[in-house]
Amino acid sequence: MPATLGELAARFGLELRGDPDRVVSGVAALGEAGPGDVSFLANPKFRRFLPDTSAGVVILDRAAADACPVPALVTANPYAAYARVAAWLCPPAAHPAPGIHPSAVVEKGATLDAGVAIGPQAYVSAGVVLGPGVIVGPGSVLDGRIDVGSNTRLSARVTLIAQVSVGARCLIHPGVVLGADGFGLAPDRDGWVKVPQLGGVKVGNDVEIGANTTIDRGAIGDTVIEDGVKLDNQIQIGHNVRIGAHTAIAACVGVAGSTTIGKRCMIGGGAGFAGHIEVADDVVINGYAMVTRSLTKKGGQYASGLPVDEVHVWRHMVGRVKRLERLNERVKRLEQAAGSEPPDDADDPRD
Amino acid sequence: MPATLGELAARFGLELRGDPDRVVSGVAALGEAGPGDVSFLANPKFRRFLPDTSAGVVILDRAAADACPVPALVTANPYAAYARVAAWLCPPAAHPAPGIHPSAVVEKGATLDAGVAIGPQAYVSAGVVLGPGVIVGPGSVLDGRIDVGSNTRLSARVTLIAQVSVGARCLIHPGVVLGADGFGLAPDRDGWVKVPQLGGVKVGNDVEIGANTTIDRGAIGDTVIEDGVKLDNQIQIGHNVRIGAHTAIAACVGVAGSTTIGKRCMIGGGAGFAGHIEVADDVVINGYAMVTRSLTKKGGQYASGLPVDEVHVWRHMVGRVKRLERLNERVKRLEQAAGSEPPDDADDPRD
Amino acid sequence: MPATLGELAARFGLELRGDPDRVVSGVAALGEAGPGDVSFLANPKFRRFLPDTSAGVVILDRAAADACPVPALVTANPYAAYARVAAWLCPPAAHPAPGIHPSAVVEKGATLDAGVAIGPQAYVSAGVVLGPGVIVGPGSVLDGRIDVGSNTRLSARVTLIAQVSVGARCLIHPGVVLGADGFGLAPDRDGWVKVPQLGGVKVGNDVEIGANTTIDRGAIGDTVIEDGVKLDNQIQIGHNVRIGAHTAIAACVGVAGSTTIGKRCMIGGGAGFAGHIEVADDVVINGYAMVTRSLTKKGGQYASGLPVDEVHVWRHMVGRVKRLERLNERVKRLEQAAGSEPPDDADDPRD
Repeated sequence: MPATLGELAARFGLELRGDPDRVVSGVAALGEAGPGDVSFLANPKFRRFLPDTSAGVVILDRAAADACPVPALVTANPYAAYARVAAWLCPPAAHPAPGIHPSAVVEKGATLDAGVAIGPQAYVSAGVVLGPGVIVGPGSVLDGRIDVGSNTRLSARVTLIAQVSVGARCLIHPGVVLGADGFGLAPDRDGWVKVPQLGGVKVGNDVEIGANTTIDRGAIGDTVIEDGVKLDNQIQIGHNVRIGAHTAIAACVGVAGSTTIGKRCMIGGGAGFAGHIEVADDVVINGYAMVTRSLTKKGGQYASGLPVDEVHVWRHMVGRVKRLERLNERVKRLEQAAGSEPPDDADDPRD
Repeated sequence: MPATLGELAARFGLELRGDPDRVVSGVAALGEAGPGDVSFLANPKFRRFLPDTSAGVVILDRAAADACPVPALVTANPYAAYARVAAWLCPPAAHPAPGIHPSAVVEKGATLDAGVAIGPQAYVSAGVVLGPGVIVGPGSVLDGRIDVGSNTRLSARVTLIAQVSVGARCLIHPGVVLGADGFGLAPDRDGWVKVPQLGGVKVGNDVEIGANTTIDRGAIGDTVIEDGVKLDNQIQIGHNVRIGAHTAIAACVGVAGSTTIGKRCMIGGGAGFAGHIEVADDVVINGYAMVTRSLTKKGGQYASGLPVDEVHVWRHMVGRVKRLERLNERVKRLEQAAGSEPPDDADDPRD
Repeated sequence: MPATLGELAARFGLELRGDPDRVVSGVAALGEAGPGDVSFLANPKFRRFLPDTSAGVVILDRAAADACPVPALVTANPYAAYARVAAWLCPPAAHPAPGIHPSAVVEKGATLDAGVAIGPQAYVSAGVVLGPGVIVGPGSVLDGRIDVGSNTRLSARVTLIAQVSVGARCLIHPGVVLGADGFGLAPDRDGWVKVPQLGGVKVGNDVEIGANTTIDRGAIGDTVIEDGVKLDNQIQIGHNVRIGAHTAIAACVGVAGSTTIGKRCMIGGGAGFAGHIEVADDVVINGYAMVTRSLTKKGGQYASGLPVDEVHVWRHMVGRVKRLERLNERVKRLEQAAGSEPPDDADDPRD
């Protein structure tokens, strides 16, 4: 969708340096953009591509603007401005037309609001309530007491079962499963007794859920994903977890049952959370971190794990770590021989 | 389904303290339960909610019973008793009626026993054999030499392919894939040669398999999941693995090919197992543990990994760990200067 | 499909020791094979089964051939030779007949070449182009600008959406999602602004992708999987990642956005890669490794992580690691007391 730089500046509140009548119609990275493209500079690491860019316009901050060889759209937050401009210039593929595809099955007892689109091979059971403009993509299964808010899109092959409520304007990617049973087992003489999972999943507004992510229903009461939460792919959320508003979680994270994560947290990929713990608001967790206790400091930043070494170095290091107890003993003996007092914790091997 | 406390006590072999004619019909957590609800106290951490509970009855053990302000159902194992009572009071949503949904496809050459229910948009190929009362949920695909035992339920969008046998009374959640090819590759001059995967997947009775979990078929011979195994979500089981009876595995665990895990083990979330190793019976593995060798001690308990620290503390710690070899050298020099003998392993940096 | 040993030797270029007219028709492990089976010996760990094998013939290398009590097919690479022989003796289940299953939906505007088979309950949208001999398995969804090369097979319930190109002779297992949005978010005052994901996924020839693996479309430009790459189950590949030709990645690995992995690498299960890093060609990464920086040494071998210990040992070890800063201090004091100079890094706790 072509636009002039003047239109973009006005519509998105950006300061234009350059010809307001120049027309752009696409987006591209700084190093590859041509005169019809909008580009942006947000990460300083890409600054080296700026002097030679052929972009039609670059969205950047004031500090970088003077070095821009082409027209510039200046703003304090170039990445967010780029996101808005790109969404407007390159709207997503045409929404499916409202209606029920002939190959879909919608049972009597489902309630569909105006403008709902049910895709090919989809299934919608009795008890499902879909708000205005909801899109149920191809091959999706909605089976149970399901409620989906206005303009939410289930991309394709999404499964909502048992008892799930999803808010408005959510985007749920393929392979997602909301509402499967949590992992509730009571040990008994002859093995495990299944603990009935009777709660639901409650997802707020403006939530995005990545491909093949799973969110279990609560055991008693609901698993809750608050407004504006962004979940990447292959995340596992256990029963009765609560994720606070606007928290973003990268791929492959697991959150065990009954854990609460605060608002506006940022969680790196592959991190894992033990059950029944609490993480404060605005906490940042690095990728691959192993969170086994509550983190109560608002805005704290946490990490764990040992980054890679070459295999022979790693092997020696593991050997040294596993003999730390003995190294401590050796230091203690040296201290005693030197007549100095070993500290209290020299004999206290607790974690 | 309402019941009197007297009925519950009799049916489940519990000792009732209180009015046998009081009626309950639901379940709730101690802090939220009302007079019509059954609640329970199993984890001492929730003991603080007991004095003020308004539950109709609380299932708890003898030690806690005296402090219970409302009627009590007393037992040595309150969690298992609660699980049974809850399953009886709150039965799962009505089973689908037997029969084949008009939108399902069942090929000639499939064998369906009495009372089988095939859900909407499901596909059942020739060569599939379904025992009495099997439920194939919406959007499921059974394609190959598949055998499913009586009263097993495939919740929705479950895929069984190639060669899979599932026992009786299993529950398989959405997105599960049983029978995909294992990862078998032979290196050759020009890349990889695929090693044909010719075995099957064999699942015992009373197994539960969580959402989006994958279990590969064997390369030669079968991958085996024994009776009563409970698998959480997003678990990956490689080819020719064997999981012993009644072992429970939490979410996001990976088990590489040809590994054997014993009976009644408990595996924490996010743990990983190398291939071709053996884990004894009754072993407990903490979450996130990295199991790279056989664990042959029956009933052993294992862990690995470093829990999170604040980022600046973690960064220093990593630096210290990576210079442990040098710290060892420094201690050795001090020992030599002091005229004492460094231990044998001071020069032996093996793991 | 029965064959004589003479035929196998000739067809696969192997040296036969034994009767060329003996007939075999199946494959089995050394310890279980009977006279009608081909077996193989590649891993020295299974050598102990050789003396007593009843196999019809064993594929093995020259060094082992003399100890073989039955006919032998000798080659420098027994595992690759076995893979080829097994694929020929035990061909995969009959390919579905070309054509469109009556329950499938193929929209006007899709282009199907000769011999394409569209399975039951599948959906193929306008804009999809399928080359000769492509198989779209049951329940698959192809929705968008999708291009699939000749003789590629989508096993069952595969999802390709938005903009995906797949080469020839690929094998894609159930639950795979190619083309979902990458995780692109710009922080702004009121939460996150979604960064439009406008690129595609480009998969080369002869690629295999395991069950429930997800590969996101690029943000700008494509996510690229080069020829001959082999991906196991439950792998997550972020937007704009590039995986070099013939690299093999085991299950449960996550690769964050814009990372490039070289050609012919081997990545162990559960490893994780930070975003925006580069890994050289021929690199080997052990399972569970945490790769947070670029690895530029061609052919390097890397690992991280601490293998399991018994819980009480692990607990002490964690305590010691977390007090390494203090142990360093104690050693430094001893050095100063002994009149020797602590090394430069004794005060430098950087990573």
